[in-house]
Amino acid sequence: FQSKLPNIQTNIFTIMSRLAAEHQALNLSQGFPNFPSEPALKALVSEAMAAGHNQYAPMPGIPELREVIVQKMELLYGATYDPETEVTVTVGASQAIYNIISSFVSPGDEVIIFKPAYDCYEPVTELHGGKPVLIQLRPDFSVDWEEVKQKISPKTRMIIINSPHNPSGSILSREDMLTLESLLKDTDIILLSDEVYEHIIFDGEQHQSAALFPGLAERAFITISLGKTFHNTGWKVGYCLAPAPLMHELRKTHQFNVFCVDHPMQKAYAAYMKEAENYMGLSSFYQQKRDYFLDLIKTSRFSFTPAKGTYFQLLDYSRITDEADTEFASRLVREKKLAAIPISVFNMNNADNKVLRFCFAKTDETLEKAAEIICSI
Amino acid sequence: FQSKLPNIQTNIFTIMSRLAAEHQALNLSQGFPNFPSEPALKALVSEAMAAGHNQYAPMPGIPELREVIVQKMELLYGATYDPETEVTVTVGASQAIYNIISSFVSPGDEVIIFKPAYDCYEPVTELHGGKPVLIQLRPDFSVDWEEVKQKISPKTRMIIINSPHNPSGSILSREDMLTLESLLKDTDIILLSDEVYEHIIFDGEQHQSAALFPGLAERAFITISLGKTFHNTGWKVGYCLAPAPLMHELRKTHQFNVFCVDHPMQKAYAAYMKEAENYMGLSSFYQQKRDYFLDLIKTSRFSFTPAKGTYFQLLDYSRITDEADTEFASRLVREKKLAAIPISVFNMNNADNKVLRFCFAKTDETLEKAAEIICSI
Ligand SMILES: CSCCC(=O)C(=O)O
Ligand SMILES: CSCCC(=O)C(=O)O
Repeated sequence: FQSKLPNIQTNIFTIMSRLAAEHQALNLSQGFPNFPSEPALKALVSEAMAAGHNQYAPMPGIPELREVIVQKMELLYGATYDPETEVTVTVGASQAIYNIISSFVSPGDEVIIFKPAYDCYEPVTELHGGKPVLIQLRPDFSVDWEEVKQKISPKTRMIIINSPHNPSGSILSREDMLTLESLLKDTDIILLSDEVYEHIIFDGEQHQSAALFPGLAERAFITISLGKTFHNTGWKVGYCLAPAPLMHELRKTHQFNVFCVDHPMQKAYAAYMKEAENYMGLSSFYQQKRDYFLDLIKTSRFSFTPAKGTYFQLLDYSRITDEADTEFASRLVREKKLAAIPISVFNMNNADNKVLRFCFAKTDETLEKAAEIICSI
Repeated sequence: FQSKLPNIQTNIFTIMSRLAAEHQALNLSQGFPNFPSEPALKALVSEAMAAGHNQYAPMPGIPELREVIVQKMELLYGATYDPETEVTVTVGASQAIYNIISSFVSPGDEVIIFKPAYDCYEPVTELHGGKPVLIQLRPDFSVDWEEVKQKISPKTRMIIINSPHNPSGSILSREDMLTLESLLKDTDIILLSDEVYEHIIFDGEQHQSAALFPGLAERAFITISLGKTFHNTGWKVGYCLAPAPLMHELRKTHQFNVFCVDHPMQKAYAAYMKEAENYMGLSSFYQQKRDYFLDLIKTSRFSFTPAKGTYFQLLDYSRITDEADTEFASRLVREKKLAAIPISVFNMNNADNKVLRFCFAKTDETLEKAAEIICSI
């Protein structure tokens, strides 16, 4: 048979986490924390199971969770969403992204994607017959909006942004968002704004959610991961927000794809998120991690610009070796027992790219051990 | 914007369960049990969370769970699957079905679907540009294989079977499977065998899994729901099996769609399913339910043929009224406080269809109350 995704293999997260386990390496590759998630949150899951919430949840998510999500959007961004028609709980942000593309991208449609990009945008677009229109970010990972303007065409169906940005840790500014808003004015282009790191932003910067800009919000899907926010990436709960007519279409694919999301876990998050303090302290928590890690490696031969958001730090190894990043990453895990992500896999195919991505959502002890290895290279 | 699924609305399960809640009706519509799931299984989830299994699970599922699944296939059907390459844990059977179609159906491909059919097959095929080729089951819900033979064309990419069959409760016999095997011989048609009710089959019949027939197994995806088997439809865990080359393709869409499945719940199922007795008694459990329910309504004006499998029973109301099934179902929930599924929504569009589907996965008390209403009509 003919493959629909002939160029796609097992993705880098699977490969690297597997290699890390095989070589008993420190795993700073795939983005997940290695410290325990909140006991209170786990207790709430157990309570929900005991209380009998073990059958199908309502298709768009349980009402209590949609309600606290809407309150959070009001609190954080002063944005108003209707919990009944404009919020859908999904199996992590991944499923939201997949189904947003499923719901709107048809053969021949163009989707603007910035490189480097989170690994799923491009193949999922292609799977649905769409044509990825790739735009390289500048060396400092800022956007060349002039190029975006030129690449927008009557076929542009969707544009995907991601701030704070995985893998670079860069963020979009208010000016970026205003520029995008003016570019999209008078078009019917859908914006997919992947904001899974909305709570992880450093140095006093404010997250510029698409929800803050009326000309973006009116056409935007915003995707959020509760796993990233509450240190439970394995619980696979996230959500997306969009104006009702867009959300109506999303729910058509959502209902057939998964029908609904884990019921006890939704109950737990709904109760836990009622207290805004349970998600408001995340930036300073991760800023400490970033600063601690960078301080430990400042004498190493790697060079870096501190991440502005996310829990990823790019390290440039061009002073160490000429190897391609996939080779260097592979040698690092085998010989030095340290796993990181070669960013060429994020569609960053510059021949001269000498950069690895490290996840610093780790205990101080793990960061110390990783730093020791990094400094020894 | 243009909708990719213009004819699709909120699906019947959402509508009916919502209506049931609104009217405080007994809900025998959507297929889920209303009795508690096993305390031992819930305890295992709590243990898994406490033990720290809260981050991403491996993309194809945790090895222990894939291992017990493979053992179960050996035990039940004498079938051999490689846990490493031929099993993938999914977000319920729904996500498996969705991604199997995503992975293999391209614009112009034909997919043979029997009517009535579980509601997702047809729209998900269309979403991917495929053409559903619909074949009406006979009045007794058996398959006209001669018609299948005629409808197979060079464009046929996939054929979807479902035994035990939702909504009719009918089953495919060994002869049916052998006939299908000979029809598919020398073709490269993929078989999607939806076997979510594999453990719910009555009157001493054996489930004829596609795994039992080499000429089918070599081309088949088998989809299974752990929610249906272990009374936890809201935990959203299922799996699929297929030969390695097919599974390799499925995992490409799976990894981008959800990446992986709820980790603590996988841990719990892996431990619980080690004991085969935890899933072997299900047929007799549900046969008692069926028999109890049918005995209670034998004096009613509804007529029926007992379901041979699944936890659904069709009831024919043609002796009561001429109304269309959607109207009758709607009146039943509003006026009599009893929710059921009008089977016309399963692509059964015969004008003269006067049948509703009732889920009997309910406590005896609920079945008694439902029977009382049914007998009063
Ligand atoms: C879904 S696995 C990938 C996790 C992640 O967000 C990353 O490592 O970039
Ligand atoms: C995914 S909701 C539908 C449940 C079910 O299998 C049915 O009611 O037929």
